[in-house]
Amino acid sequence: MLNTLIVGASGYAGVELATYINRHPQMTLTALAVSAQSPDAGKLLSDLHPQLKGVIDLRLEPLNDAATWASKVDVVFLATAHEVSHDLAPVFLASGCVVFDLSGAFRVSKPGFYDAFYGFSHQYPHWLSQAAYGLAEWNHQQIAEAQLIAVPGCYPTAAQLALRPLLEAGLINDGQWPVINAVSGVSGAGRKASITTSFCEVSLQPYGIFNHRHQPEIISHLGSSVIFTPHLGNFSRGILETITCRLKPTVRHEDVAAAFHNAYQDKPLVRIYDKGVPSIKSVAGLPYCDIGFVVQEEHLIVISAIDNLLKGAASQAVQCLNIRFGFPETESLVYM
Amino acid sequence: MLNTLIVGASGYAGVELATYINRHPQMTLTALAVSAQSPDAGKLLSDLHPQLKGVIDLRLEPLNDAATWASKVDVVFLATAHEVSHDLAPVFLASGCVVFDLSGAFRVSKPGFYDAFYGFSHQYPHWLSQAAYGLAEWNHQQIAEAQLIAVPGCYPTAAQLALRPLLEAGLINDGQWPVINAVSGVSGAGRKASITTSFCEVSLQPYGIFNHRHQPEIISHLGSSVIFTPHLGNFSRGILETITCRLKPTVRHEDVAAAFHNAYQDKPLVRIYDKGVPSIKSVAGLPYCDIGFVVQEEHLIVISAIDNLLKGAASQAVQCLNIRFGFPETESLVYM
Amino acid sequence: MLNTLIVGASGYAGVELATYINRHPQMTLTALAVSAQSPDAGKLLSDLHPQLKGVIDLRLEPLNDAATWASKVDVVFLATAHEVSHDLAPVFLASGCVVFDLSGAFRVSKPGFYDAFYGFSHQYPHWLSQAAYGLAEWNHQQIAEAQLIAVPGCYPTAAQLALRPLLEAGLINDGQWPVINAVSGVSGAGRKASITTSFCEVSLQPYGIFNHRHQPEIISHLGSSVIFTPHLGNFSRGILETITCRLKPTVRHEDVAAAFHNAYQDKPLVRIYDKGVPSIKSVAGLPYCDIGFVVQEEHLIVISAIDNLLKGAASQAVQCLNIRFGFPETESLVYM
Amino acid sequence: MLNTLIVGASGYAGVELATYINRHPQMTLTALAVSAQSPDAGKLLSDLHPQLKGVIDLRLEPLNDAATWASKVDVVFLATAHEVSHDLAPVFLASGCVVFDLSGAFRVSKPGFYDAFYGFSHQYPHWLSQAAYGLAEWNHQQIAEAQLIAVPGCYPTAAQLALRPLLEAGLINDGQWPVINAVSGVSGAGRKASITTSFCEVSLQPYGIFNHRHQPEIISHLGSSVIFTPHLGNFSRGILETITCRLKPTVRHEDVAAAFHNAYQDKPLVRIYDKGVPSIKSVAGLPYCDIGFVVQEEHLIVISAIDNLLKGAASQAVQCLNIRFGFPETESLVYM
Repeated sequence: MLNTLIVGASGYAGVELATYINRHPQMTLTALAVSAQSPDAGKLLSDLHPQLKGVIDLRLEPLNDAATWASKVDVVFLATAHEVSHDLAPVFLASGCVVFDLSGAFRVSKPGFYDAFYGFSHQYPHWLSQAAYGLAEWNHQQIAEAQLIAVPGCYPTAAQLALRPLLEAGLINDGQWPVINAVSGVSGAGRKASITTSFCEVSLQPYGIFNHRHQPEIISHLGSSVIFTPHLGNFSRGILETITCRLKPTVRHEDVAAAFHNAYQDKPLVRIYDKGVPSIKSVAGLPYCDIGFVVQEEHLIVISAIDNLLKGAASQAVQCLNIRFGFPETESLVYM
Repeated sequence: MLNTLIVGASGYAGVELATYINRHPQMTLTALAVSAQSPDAGKLLSDLHPQLKGVIDLRLEPLNDAATWASKVDVVFLATAHEVSHDLAPVFLASGCVVFDLSGAFRVSKPGFYDAFYGFSHQYPHWLSQAAYGLAEWNHQQIAEAQLIAVPGCYPTAAQLALRPLLEAGLINDGQWPVINAVSGVSGAGRKASITTSFCEVSLQPYGIFNHRHQPEIISHLGSSVIFTPHLGNFSRGILETITCRLKPTVRHEDVAAAFHNAYQDKPLVRIYDKGVPSIKSVAGLPYCDIGFVVQEEHLIVISAIDNLLKGAASQAVQCLNIRFGFPETESLVYM
Repeated sequence: MLNTLIVGASGYAGVELATYINRHPQMTLTALAVSAQSPDAGKLLSDLHPQLKGVIDLRLEPLNDAATWASKVDVVFLATAHEVSHDLAPVFLASGCVVFDLSGAFRVSKPGFYDAFYGFSHQYPHWLSQAAYGLAEWNHQQIAEAQLIAVPGCYPTAAQLALRPLLEAGLINDGQWPVINAVSGVSGAGRKASITTSFCEVSLQPYGIFNHRHQPEIISHLGSSVIFTPHLGNFSRGILETITCRLKPTVRHEDVAAAFHNAYQDKPLVRIYDKGVPSIKSVAGLPYCDIGFVVQEEHLIVISAIDNLLKGAASQAVQCLNIRFGFPETESLVYM
Repeated sequence: MLNTLIVGASGYAGVELATYINRHPQMTLTALAVSAQSPDAGKLLSDLHPQLKGVIDLRLEPLNDAATWASKVDVVFLATAHEVSHDLAPVFLASGCVVFDLSGAFRVSKPGFYDAFYGFSHQYPHWLSQAAYGLAEWNHQQIAEAQLIAVPGCYPTAAQLALRPLLEAGLINDGQWPVINAVSGVSGAGRKASITTSFCEVSLQPYGIFNHRHQPEIISHLGSSVIFTPHLGNFSRGILETITCRLKPTVRHEDVAAAFHNAYQDKPLVRIYDKGVPSIKSVAGLPYCDIGFVVQEEHLIVISAIDNLLKGAASQAVQCLNIRFGFPETESLVYM
């Protein structure tokens, strides 16, 4: 049994992590922590999230002394802000913990990326170079060997799982950038008081046009340019991405289908649609990425859907944990 | 033309007031104000509420000096917090302005009410005794003569319009208190950053059981006890109240129908249903109170529905203005 | 392993039943059936409900010959219309199957109940008298011994779990009927094309005032009159009931708390709130009934919340199955 | 005063038309009609749409004899299915009525268009050639002179108002088709019983990929190819289109801004955003098309938002009526 600490446990992804770890047969949910300044410190997780009453009634510990906690646990999940993860991860790594970071702090190893897109200079180039990028279906080997796993962003997960098979198979026309239109549920903005996410203000609307941090994350890992336009939608959970690509002239429907099936035939958490296309409802509350597509002449529309809190955060983190420790890949994720 | 100032114009009721006054043929929308500390000060109303772009592009003035504003306008609407209205109303009244206060600060003239239910001691007993309670269909004469009109709360408006005809007609069995179950849209909580009203947290749920301030407001004006249980619902606008009463033994359906029709036959903004019952959809965006009812033996269920921001706030305030100044009662409120 | 047939498997409760039985370690999901006339016959369950893709890809069989199916299975769930259950249950019972009926066809054993409230004369008084009423927390012994279990209605489940401990403890003032205001999600109306449940028409609204069939079901089993007013709410899943009662004069908060805790201290699927009250969000997707309450003098408000498709239908049916066959009561229902 | 008949008045666009005509100072709302087979025939409009109670209580006439109605009215709005409009319009035109058709039956004058995309052969090539395409901001002269006005589709209105200024100004790179991702509220599917639009089934999802009829409508009128992907969203009203274009190399932000402002500077119902972008909330319930945009190097994202029932149907029809008869263009459409 591995002792586990979840930092940032009061947020929406933290709750999902706690649920997964709580029922994982090889893991012990040792403690839940929040920042010492958080108004949630000292409360029960089930006071904030009453659906967990009787299931997980652990108290949210104020994280006063990370080093002490580091000596008590084997595994740490950081569901924290980028700068907090940047500062905390090395403390836990120094104690030998295996760290799964759900923030953006260790996702891209290129020098200057954090100065350009995150507004801070990264202080840990060593760990940056050592971190595995936790796109579970593609980076199995690196994840299995790493001490630090940077769990991908929600939008980049849906985008890369859709585009990478096409790029690997050489089907995309280089002359035209794929256009990714993405709509996310409001939980993607986190659990916090904000006018922007207040009930009466939410309405389908684009944001961060041409300047969302997930665009360079996608481009860095795909090695290919894209146009990425995120939107806030009026639902709680889920991401739907509608991706428009130009195919190379000779590519046909069968080639696209083959690319997807080859890539994911033995991947239990990606579901390829042979007919129809996914919706938010197909994946909300589930750890899958669902992918459908339609080809017409040189044009391809791919639809990729995930639950932003699960395959876009918590379930992918636990999937990486399962890979890292040699557990069955879907352990504690699916109940069937 | 009467010069008009709206204080608290950036909130949801403020926006509706601005819209009504902007199109009122006898009113000039002189200025919109917010508290000097508000982050909205200096912004255009249409920046915060883009549906008004090109319609009302006025700037939100910081209310640094109420007395100066008081000398420039004839009419003031206070869509402000209780304590703010309590402090501001006398400043405007002293200059001779007619004041329509949408807060609870002047609704109940009984000594001790504010100490008991609002947590402050009222400093203006004179104005409290002079204020008309702006329940438009019932207090026409007082409203027409007052300098200060206290616009009723949203829940109390729907409750009193439903219960007062029955009480006046002597139909209710005194031995049993009417049970008012009310569900309000989230806009009732105001436009502010709050976890409680954030999109992912809103879910049908009761609150303020036995201790909501609207219960004593209802009881004070009806002169009859009630049990009032408010709920937050997952929609933006509207209130639906389901009111269960015990009738006196001989009362029949016809008596209840007669009581409602007699009370409201010449009232253009109350609609009585002879079949069916209202829903939130019947009234959202409209200045009406819709009332339906069903009688079975000694039991009566009354359904009363309003838009909490309109008949529960802004449109009732303008209805009171129309009464006060002798304009047609529905001026600027209905567009037909 | 018990072979299991689910009839009416394409509806919302049917899907939940299929999911529970599919993962139940002592059950085999033998087949899913729909009426022979259903347009869904022949389709995959996962075509209609894509969240199940890769999880349950069984085909929906047309139920042409119930007797043949009866000879092949041990357990049958009927998630069918009242009249269909009335006709089908005896066929399966005659073959020795254990039948869990989610309709109203066998819930009340009083003569004349079906003529009065369901519009048909019951043809199977023997089975009606033999059926156990599957209110799992209260009728354990009858459920354990019955061949036919009538799973309670959704509204009656939430109402009875809230009221029965109070009645058993003798706390309610007989002179005043409890007032039950209930709001249900739209899934309660079933999966079918209808103007009433179309997206643009749904709005918080009461229906069936004084004449909903669940009122006499509640009264029959509680042995006490109530006033029950159901509403349709604008959400998919869940029921929240706000129940207003008059207490006997000497009853205090502690007495109510004791009644609830005594009744449910060893019942894993009822959660009593010692502070706060439940919401729809507390229970959506979960098999619990959550109960909170507030006492003020002689008045008591109880809030009872369930997922209408789970504790109000499918999970209670499986809970009854677990009781009937001696499996752990929460088997396949909770994943923790 | 012009006598007016609305056919198909019970649907969502019909209700909006009835409201506009009812308050139009130069129009008389003579009658509302539905097909003779409709279950709504004989009902009051306000029974179906209770928000209109006391506002429009007209009865829905069964349209048994179009020719007789044609002799009684001056103006006809057809809010009917394509084939119904195709058959009815010539009857009313033959009597000299001015006809505003909200269906697709007369939108594209090219031979073969209806065979290819609507599944029927058009029988009225004369009227097809005479019909004005009612894109109000662009076809003023034709609308002013026509007897038959084909009101554009909802998606095509938002798309063309966004793209046409750019094409007229020659800013778009011909080598790459604009990508139009559009999300519509559920009211776009009409008022009818359907599983697809039932409350529990609606979820953000694309449909009609590469084969929606609005794609050829857009292309026909723009004279330029586009990729158009519609989605159903989980809200009642509104369309948001996110349009990704490649600009010619030398085009800058100022050129795009100038193109929009030049095109719409004197058009009261198109609002150009100089900062920020529109959302569904900006336009729901309003007759405007709101347009915002962002340029980055050679890439342009345009956001175009309308209410699908208003600028995408009823308000654009009345705007065309105002143009046709020389009334102020916004008569009865805006209330300010």
